[in-house]
Amino acid sequence: MNFREGDYILLVCEDRRYLKALTKDFSLNYKERVIRFEDIIGKEPGHSVNGFYVLNPTLEEMILLGFQRKTQIVYPKDSFYIAYKLGLSKDKRLLEFGVGSGASTAVFSQLAGEVWAYEIREDFYRLAKKNWEKFDLCKNVRLENLDFMFADVEENFFDAVFVDVKEPTLYIQKVWRVLKFGAPFATILPTANQVSNLLKSMENLFCNVEVLEILHRPYKPNPDRLRPQDTMTAHTGYLVFARKRI
Amino acid sequence: MNFREGDYILLVCEDRRYLKALTKDFSLNYKERVIRFEDIIGKEPGHSVNGFYVLNPTLEEMILLGFQRKTQIVYPKDSFYIAYKLGLSKDKRLLEFGVGSGASTAVFSQLAGEVWAYEIREDFYRLAKKNWEKFDLCKNVRLENLDFMFADVEENFFDAVFVDVKEPTLYIQKVWRVLKFGAPFATILPTANQVSNLLKSMENLFCNVEVLEILHRPYKPNPDRLRPQDTMTAHTGYLVFARKRI
Amino acid sequence: MNFREGDYILLVCEDRRYLKALTKDFSLNYKERVIRFEDIIGKEPGHSVNGFYVLNPTLEEMILLGFQRKTQIVYPKDSFYIAYKLGLSKDKRLLEFGVGSGASTAVFSQLAGEVWAYEIREDFYRLAKKNWEKFDLCKNVRLENLDFMFADVEENFFDAVFVDVKEPTLYIQKVWRVLKFGAPFATILPTANQVSNLLKSMENLFCNVEVLEILHRPYKPNPDRLRPQDTMTAHTGYLVFARKRI
Amino acid sequence: MNFREGDYILLVCEDRRYLKALTKDFSLNYKERVIRFEDIIGKEPGHSVNGFYVLNPTLEEMILLGFQRKTQIVYPKDSFYIAYKLGLSKDKRLLEFGVGSGASTAVFSQLAGEVWAYEIREDFYRLAKKNWEKFDLCKNVRLENLDFMFADVEENFFDAVFVDVKEPTLYIQKVWRVLKFGAPFATILPTANQVSNLLKSMENLFCNVEVLEILHRPYKPNPDRLRPQDTMTAHTGYLVFARKRI
Repeated sequence: MNFREGDYILLVCEDRRYLKALTKDFSLNYKERVIRFEDIIGKEPGHSVNGFYVLNPTLEEMILLGFQRKTQIVYPKDSFYIAYKLGLSKDKRLLEFGVGSGASTAVFSQLAGEVWAYEIREDFYRLAKKNWEKFDLCKNVRLENLDFMFADVEENFFDAVFVDVKEPTLYIQKVWRVLKFGAPFATILPTANQVSNLLKSMENLFCNVEVLEILHRPYKPNPDRLRPQDTMTAHTGYLVFARKRI
Repeated sequence: MNFREGDYILLVCEDRRYLKALTKDFSLNYKERVIRFEDIIGKEPGHSVNGFYVLNPTLEEMILLGFQRKTQIVYPKDSFYIAYKLGLSKDKRLLEFGVGSGASTAVFSQLAGEVWAYEIREDFYRLAKKNWEKFDLCKNVRLENLDFMFADVEENFFDAVFVDVKEPTLYIQKVWRVLKFGAPFATILPTANQVSNLLKSMENLFCNVEVLEILHRPYKPNPDRLRPQDTMTAHTGYLVFARKRI
Repeated sequence: MNFREGDYILLVCEDRRYLKALTKDFSLNYKERVIRFEDIIGKEPGHSVNGFYVLNPTLEEMILLGFQRKTQIVYPKDSFYIAYKLGLSKDKRLLEFGVGSGASTAVFSQLAGEVWAYEIREDFYRLAKKNWEKFDLCKNVRLENLDFMFADVEENFFDAVFVDVKEPTLYIQKVWRVLKFGAPFATILPTANQVSNLLKSMENLFCNVEVLEILHRPYKPNPDRLRPQDTMTAHTGYLVFARKRI
Repeated sequence: MNFREGDYILLVCEDRRYLKALTKDFSLNYKERVIRFEDIIGKEPGHSVNGFYVLNPTLEEMILLGFQRKTQIVYPKDSFYIAYKLGLSKDKRLLEFGVGSGASTAVFSQLAGEVWAYEIREDFYRLAKKNWEKFDLCKNVRLENLDFMFADVEENFFDAVFVDVKEPTLYIQKVWRVLKFGAPFATILPTANQVSNLLKSMENLFCNVEVLEILHRPYKPNPDRLRPQDTMTAHTGYLVFARKRI
């Protein structure tokens, strides 16, 4: 599909990446190069215009470069793994609360049948909506601006849950109730203290508990000088997985 | 859904996990405990029978505990990430060659619309088929027992590709031809030398090249003694991602 | 120096390493190879005898292959770093308690002027002595079989301290008193909970606090197939460093 | 020892660290705090002056904060480990070439009896000298402004060697000749390609080859919110160790 006005495009120049809306009158400078956006219209993806490669953005690029954030997002390196660990598929209903900027929901909604999502803060609620609309994502997501504590949902209703709040221990009893028997639970927590507290609150409610961290180590893609990059992200969060027991 | 004879079940006892077919006359011993499989039939997931929790296996558990292997598999920690990096969705057609035991295909087929898969060795071809049938997976996969070099496919036909062969450089020109413009490429390679060689062969054909490793660091889930496990997997492979350029 | 009877030798065959006393009548088998120890006597280090390379062991090899252990030792990867972080030199007096098998003391004693060491358990006290005598180490170490809590030492006496006990918080006040002003403190702790507790107890007593982990990632040394080994040690302990404040 | 004019001091304020010469008329600002250096004179280490803790710098702090650099240095995390792996002690003679800013030499000289050091570039040679003089280090080091290729040294002369040059393969034969039998070799190399090349050149000359990376993962030292820092150094270099064989 050739690029049309209004498309979101990824521009790659050396190791720089930009995600932009394709607007006729816009142009972008990097070092001494200029790319005029009108020169992109009608071109196929993969073309180079004045030293910039023009591509369709992937979901990861939309999230990392195109989502507005007011808080720490769940990074794709974590949410891609969580999505599969939750056993999502088109016949599954996911509960998510603590939606934030909507980054993880955008990932889960691709595998899940439907997502029931809750966000307590109105500004985050609006932001998630906006991020999804921008990239036409999350059509199968029901988002409410509500503390999940006050959500009126049936028992044994959800096939899986992802929790991203500061104090998941406060919600753990309710989470347990609304999950189906044996259903997977996942959360991400920045500190070791939170993990300890959560694990204590999960005893007698959940089984098959796993705690892990995911580290991505990026390399400089130079064939004659292959080596890791100088710095890397050392920590986004501890992931905790478990299954509802009876 | 209550367990019925013939279901695959995950049994969890302390830090041991077993994936078994639920066969009436079978039983399992661990330390001094015995679990008789007939006692599981009719129970809901999440129940504990004689110290064993009984659960429905997730895709990761099917692959790690239930797939037969004759070769190194692509681990879920890697394939879950690759699946999303390839931008798969229900309207996308994936090419995969070097299918091996079929572990990565089982992951990709969940996000993709269809997968065209090639495996050169007949024993691996049969094994992948068998693994998928066992768990009722990969209905949208066309698997051929053929070296992809001899596959008769149109140019600009695939939306994404995953390559898992020893010498991807031999295939790189053909891979380029059959991909749509701007489409994502992914591979996994065990050695740094292979990465160097591949990167050289990709110059002038691909852009937006990324090389990275994914490390999972598991913890002992003890709330009063939280700490990483003693050992971890140090390496499965280097991941290389890129996009077809023109 | 050519090998003589009674020397300790390191034998290297492919990726196997053995540390042995050079005893005339002894021999060693690996796969189909036999090395008779009498053939080693008089040889220079670096010689190969029947496929085994014969070397003088380094301190790391003595500790990892030659020290008897009754408990988890402080690994050289950690103690080599700690030794320098403690700012040890020939005019410095180190306090160490929780000596265990004596592995870390053997490292510190090389850089320090003298080491005052305490071990509460008599079996460990004897074991450390035995390990040091075996390799003629730790001549500058005064080891007492005593809980450091009951040690009679002056205030502001030590230039540095290394603590390796389960509950360092119990000792932190006394440690503070016997250290010189501004002197470095180090410890190693297996769990995150212990680190949290220790950090709390150090407030108002220590400054310049650092917490870190050291990870060693070993590679297979094959020039044509360079890659990390399959597994690695994921955790030995969290290191905590600080300086006595006033 | 109380601080006197001319001493080098480490100033610690929250998570900032400064290494300074104690000069009467100097002062330092951080946020809204001012520390006047004349207020430090006569104080004991560990004192806090206006929110800054004043300490004697350790060797690591001298290197990281006080050494001038014109090139990438060998980081203490690596050189502390290398020093011990080289089996250095007061009766050992170390060869080092590619001295650069002199950071690694400052570490090795503490354990070794003497160090024979070579640096090809005159500007680096002067810089290393200057860094050592500043902190009164490396009295047992003989530094020559010379390519080691042209150094006139006896065979079987050195007890250990550390090499830090771009193309160690060019020197490997000479290194072999000047080492004693069985003596340890160490180097650090930034790229995987260099490691492959070096390993090839070492075949038949060295045994007991090890390749590894050292990763330090720093934590935020907050007892109630213990967690790794956001970013970490991902790579300084691959370490290669071996022993001279015959």
